[in-house]
Amino acid sequence: MTKNIPETMNISILNKPFDMELKEVTVPQLGENDVLVKVMAVGVCGSDVHYYEHGRVGEFIVEKPLILGHECSGIVADVGSDVTKFKVGDRVAIEPGVPCGECEYCKSGKYNLCPDVEFLATPPIDGAFSQYIKHPEGFLFHIPEDLSYEEATLNEPFSVGVQACKRANVQPGSTVVIMGMGPVGLMAVVAAKAFGATKIIVSDLEQIRLDEALKLGATHAINIKNEDVTMRINEITQEKGADYAFETAGNPIALQNALSSLNNGGTLAIVGLPQQENNELNIPFIANHEINIVGIFRYANTYKMGLEMLSSTMADLNSMFTDTYDLKEAKAAMEQARTNKSGSLKVLVYPNGKPE
Amino acid sequence: MTKNIPETMNISILNKPFDMELKEVTVPQLGENDVLVKVMAVGVCGSDVHYYEHGRVGEFIVEKPLILGHECSGIVADVGSDVTKFKVGDRVAIEPGVPCGECEYCKSGKYNLCPDVEFLATPPIDGAFSQYIKHPEGFLFHIPEDLSYEEATLNEPFSVGVQACKRANVQPGSTVVIMGMGPVGLMAVVAAKAFGATKIIVSDLEQIRLDEALKLGATHAINIKNEDVTMRINEITQEKGADYAFETAGNPIALQNALSSLNNGGTLAIVGLPQQENNELNIPFIANHEINIVGIFRYANTYKMGLEMLSSTMADLNSMFTDTYDLKEAKAAMEQARTNKSGSLKVLVYPNGKPE
Amino acid sequence: MTKNIPETMNISILNKPFDMELKEVTVPQLGENDVLVKVMAVGVCGSDVHYYEHGRVGEFIVEKPLILGHECSGIVADVGSDVTKFKVGDRVAIEPGVPCGECEYCKSGKYNLCPDVEFLATPPIDGAFSQYIKHPEGFLFHIPEDLSYEEATLNEPFSVGVQACKRANVQPGSTVVIMGMGPVGLMAVVAAKAFGATKIIVSDLEQIRLDEALKLGATHAINIKNEDVTMRINEITQEKGADYAFETAGNPIALQNALSSLNNGGTLAIVGLPQQENNELNIPFIANHEINIVGIFRYANTYKMGLEMLSSTMADLNSMFTDTYDLKEAKAAMEQARTNKSGSLKVLVYPNGKPE
Amino acid sequence: MTKNIPETMNISILNKPFDMELKEVTVPQLGENDVLVKVMAVGVCGSDVHYYEHGRVGEFIVEKPLILGHECSGIVADVGSDVTKFKVGDRVAIEPGVPCGECEYCKSGKYNLCPDVEFLATPPIDGAFSQYIKHPEGFLFHIPEDLSYEEATLNEPFSVGVQACKRANVQPGSTVVIMGMGPVGLMAVVAAKAFGATKIIVSDLEQIRLDEALKLGATHAINIKNEDVTMRINEITQEKGADYAFETAGNPIALQNALSSLNNGGTLAIVGLPQQENNELNIPFIANHEINIVGIFRYANTYKMGLEMLSSTMADLNSMFTDTYDLKEAKAAMEQARTNKSGSLKVLVYPNGKPE
Repeated sequence: MTKNIPETMNISILNKPFDMELKEVTVPQLGENDVLVKVMAVGVCGSDVHYYEHGRVGEFIVEKPLILGHECSGIVADVGSDVTKFKVGDRVAIEPGVPCGECEYCKSGKYNLCPDVEFLATPPIDGAFSQYIKHPEGFLFHIPEDLSYEEATLNEPFSVGVQACKRANVQPGSTVVIMGMGPVGLMAVVAAKAFGATKIIVSDLEQIRLDEALKLGATHAINIKNEDVTMRINEITQEKGADYAFETAGNPIALQNALSSLNNGGTLAIVGLPQQENNELNIPFIANHEINIVGIFRYANTYKMGLEMLSSTMADLNSMFTDTYDLKEAKAAMEQARTNKSGSLKVLVYPNGKPE
Repeated sequence: MTKNIPETMNISILNKPFDMELKEVTVPQLGENDVLVKVMAVGVCGSDVHYYEHGRVGEFIVEKPLILGHECSGIVADVGSDVTKFKVGDRVAIEPGVPCGECEYCKSGKYNLCPDVEFLATPPIDGAFSQYIKHPEGFLFHIPEDLSYEEATLNEPFSVGVQACKRANVQPGSTVVIMGMGPVGLMAVVAAKAFGATKIIVSDLEQIRLDEALKLGATHAINIKNEDVTMRINEITQEKGADYAFETAGNPIALQNALSSLNNGGTLAIVGLPQQENNELNIPFIANHEINIVGIFRYANTYKMGLEMLSSTMADLNSMFTDTYDLKEAKAAMEQARTNKSGSLKVLVYPNGKPE
Repeated sequence: MTKNIPETMNISILNKPFDMELKEVTVPQLGENDVLVKVMAVGVCGSDVHYYEHGRVGEFIVEKPLILGHECSGIVADVGSDVTKFKVGDRVAIEPGVPCGECEYCKSGKYNLCPDVEFLATPPIDGAFSQYIKHPEGFLFHIPEDLSYEEATLNEPFSVGVQACKRANVQPGSTVVIMGMGPVGLMAVVAAKAFGATKIIVSDLEQIRLDEALKLGATHAINIKNEDVTMRINEITQEKGADYAFETAGNPIALQNALSSLNNGGTLAIVGLPQQENNELNIPFIANHEINIVGIFRYANTYKMGLEMLSSTMADLNSMFTDTYDLKEAKAAMEQARTNKSGSLKVLVYPNGKPE
Repeated sequence: MTKNIPETMNISILNKPFDMELKEVTVPQLGENDVLVKVMAVGVCGSDVHYYEHGRVGEFIVEKPLILGHECSGIVADVGSDVTKFKVGDRVAIEPGVPCGECEYCKSGKYNLCPDVEFLATPPIDGAFSQYIKHPEGFLFHIPEDLSYEEATLNEPFSVGVQACKRANVQPGSTVVIMGMGPVGLMAVVAAKAFGATKIIVSDLEQIRLDEALKLGATHAINIKNEDVTMRINEITQEKGADYAFETAGNPIALQNALSSLNNGGTLAIVGLPQQENNELNIPFIANHEINIVGIFRYANTYKMGLEMLSSTMADLNSMFTDTYDLKEAKAAMEQARTNKSGSLKVLVYPNGKPE
């Protein structure tokens, strides 16, 4: 395949909260191990919306114009001189975090904990609302034939679910409770199913999200608007409790309920970040029942296995994509994601134009 | 060795808080798999003192007279017809919890979580302040030659430390913080050292306990009366933090400090029970640093390895025994343990008389 | 449901090789924790055939008449006085091995390694070619509603596959090679799929077995009559090799091929027993590629999760049942299993009559 | 500390078998992340001797003059512009293998399996018989104050023992058999002790090595010239067998004995490479006793913890150093290591002169 790369490209930048702008900039130069990817699809994440709305996420502050978007996939447009795994025309999923490769976390397989990681769309690192992006070969992955660019973008939130399942050591034949059916919670359903969980109990207060969870493999859905989540989990598990519980929404009450849903020796995965630092947990319960708790921060070594799993899943992943936008409509995409929580699941932006 | 068993024996019972009484009762009959043990030494545990003072521990209530004492060792006086591992005259350590053997926890190696476990000195099961005790063969262990009866009683609190090290997966060459230097904390120091930890940082507010910890293998001691524990841990670890932290005192502030002392991917073991159910933890810290938390409830499969480890330790275990009493002085023993926290480490009761 | 138990029952016994006999004996008496199960279906295992043909399996010798059959399920006909989990009329799968419950293997969750295990149809313990069988409550499991008695018998060979996946620590998204598509190999395909393996490559020389493997979830089948297994695995994995390889046939050449099919850090599970003790393995390959090897002996803690997994599988388990017999035809069943290896997959015996 | 680096330096090269030559070459230039280390001590490894004698090790062939030596330590002489962890004058241990940092093995913490690793003194990569060496910052480690340069070189063979203990998951209180008391076997004794093993049984046919093993922490030594190793292990373990067995000598008979020394569920670590590919193992034994086997290839993530462990060990490491040489005597060092197997343990070369 021949290269056909323009000199300039369009990007969408966040200048400050609610202020997004389309700009034309030079296409980036490649280093020896870099790949130039023409970005074909980008999912909008809750953190993108948070930057858009507040100009910051925790300690990460937008101090200069930032390109958003880190759930992305594309097609290889050019390769650096030392690149061997990819060639022009290859379809690739982009793992957005690039660690240092030399610290003790990197060397021991926990590169998500690398203090020097550079993560797309996390200040000051730009993201993927851009026609082209430069990325090191080691953090690109071939998209299996039967997955679309759009589905491949889901590998990013899916990876969080996979990380939770890996760290919680989810076993086949087990019961998993997942609280919060935002995109991460929904993809965690797909992950738990891929890990062989046979009862997957989900909770949320938006019925559209619960319905989607059931489509993706959940076996029981609890609408916390109408139902007592603890009572329902007891019923479903015949008073035994769950083997694993994931809290994905950052809700302190859900966290307490997730903990108390566990049986002896059960494991709680903390995926969502509560707004406040200190939150109450029942400590004697943790000790007396030998509960395990695992914190989840992004993921490591999930991208390749994640694409394999998405390629093999029976779930209809396309039901996740409720809204699609061109790059020049990026602000509309952000607004839709921000305001339509009871209607939108995953909002997509197409930096090189929506497919026809 | 010939049997020489009297028909009756002395026991010390707790009638109600602060009311202990010496009684004479019939020596128990053995079932096929039972062993009759002449009890040679019993350590007084914090839970014994709690029953003595309050008549209850959590949901376990002394509703009828109870024999206290579960840290015990002795000599085999008789064996049931199917017993093959022991003969009269063998020196044995007694694992105090006997589980059902058939539930899913028992079958999967987590018998400490068995809901039907019978644990010495936990109502309504009697303990070891008794000249003889009947115990099933499967929960007795030969005392290595170079350990005394007294040292063998330490295998009980030591087992809690071993369980914490096992569940936290303490690795050689690592740094362990242990907060609270009561007997369990002190024995956890010995355990951490046996697991190969090379920095063992301890904290307490009683200097006698810190001094003992340093004797038993701690490398750094922090007296929280005078020193800022967080600042000191940062200094000692050169701002890196600990790999593991154990909270053994049930102190909510210590628990928060233990958590915040950890580096990325570190593990917190919750050993001590706070008085209140709900306690504040920094949840975003747990997620962002991928912290692991493990609750510790007693122990499983630690007795045999524990005795091996105690037999091999360089630590002078006898420095733990600060006070000794005959069975008829059991109340004095309880009072000493209850009131002399700045002077006593481990109080021992000898049901068959103090050694000369 | 009311009990309706006859005083006598029919059993089929193996007197000596090729000599089977139907006899009438007294229905067994129950102990306190026993359950009387009316046996509804029994699968014929290779070990049954081996006893039938040779009068022994390894060191286990048929010295007195033996009841064969250990892959079995039934309906509760009566319960002992202390039984709480089951009532008359419950449908149950029978875990055939009952361990001592007190040795170090039992206590640590590896009860399959208990030296005193009593295993159905393993001399001198009788099996399930019998209208009724007595079994302890702790080794019976409720059959999920959507599984038949016949399907529940498959939980026994399935458990071997589950044990292999557990011990090999099969991860979702991985590639598993399984050599030998006898019933254990076929059920290992179902297990690997339940553990999330996305490429399952199988080999055998009987096409009927390969076809069945593909039905049950294998993604690639290699007929070693016509194809070079090593070359094909290299093609399928794009020269990378497999993550896991199971040898289930006891074939020394397959074992070597299984080993060499692995990539760096891969794991070999040895499930099948070669006829000879000593077999050649490439030791420098094991060291240089940091291969892991795990021996598999029966299973522990797989029955409950196994039934959950079988209940959730998409595979058509009924395609396994090629031949069915009444109890009085037990010899014909053994002959069919012994002689029709290119036509029969799993032969079933119905001690209480074939279903209509 | 000020830099004081000459323009040229001495190196000792292996031209072809038995032909070593001292040469003067330019001191290497540093890249941004490189450190220049003045080499203070180098241990002679069996592989160095093998290159010296045969010009090859397995598939690695000396096709052009090669600098030998990879067990090394030194003092920082200069640092590249991006180096932050080290400054001139720091004492450092050198981890000899530098992996690519981007492949799946590197990213998952198994960088010893990286196919592109560059390992000192492994053709075509030069080693440390050189006054200065250039090495990337990420693979250098501060030597604890209480360790000498010489002791720090032992961290290399020690790391192999640590890797074996890590992969075999050696637990405190366990019994480890180690066959072959060459330097790797001897350092594996120190490792097993650091991991808490309480019985360490070693075998060899050179009494000097067995005596050294007992000094370093072995509890039982078997001289296979005079004693039946299997019988002795049975005696020592009271017929129970070992929990772990390491074969470090590449001896096929020792490998079989190591395997058969294990109890149910035991683990065999294959550290030594037999000369031939195929070697006989008892496969039914592996299956019936659910043995685990782990291949060991170098090590990963052991250098830092290894130095901590060496710094804390009670063993007298200096008893390992039997022979010392200047750089210009490198050939004499190789000859001593090659020919004096019953007298020499570890031979050291000092590229910058023996200490006075």
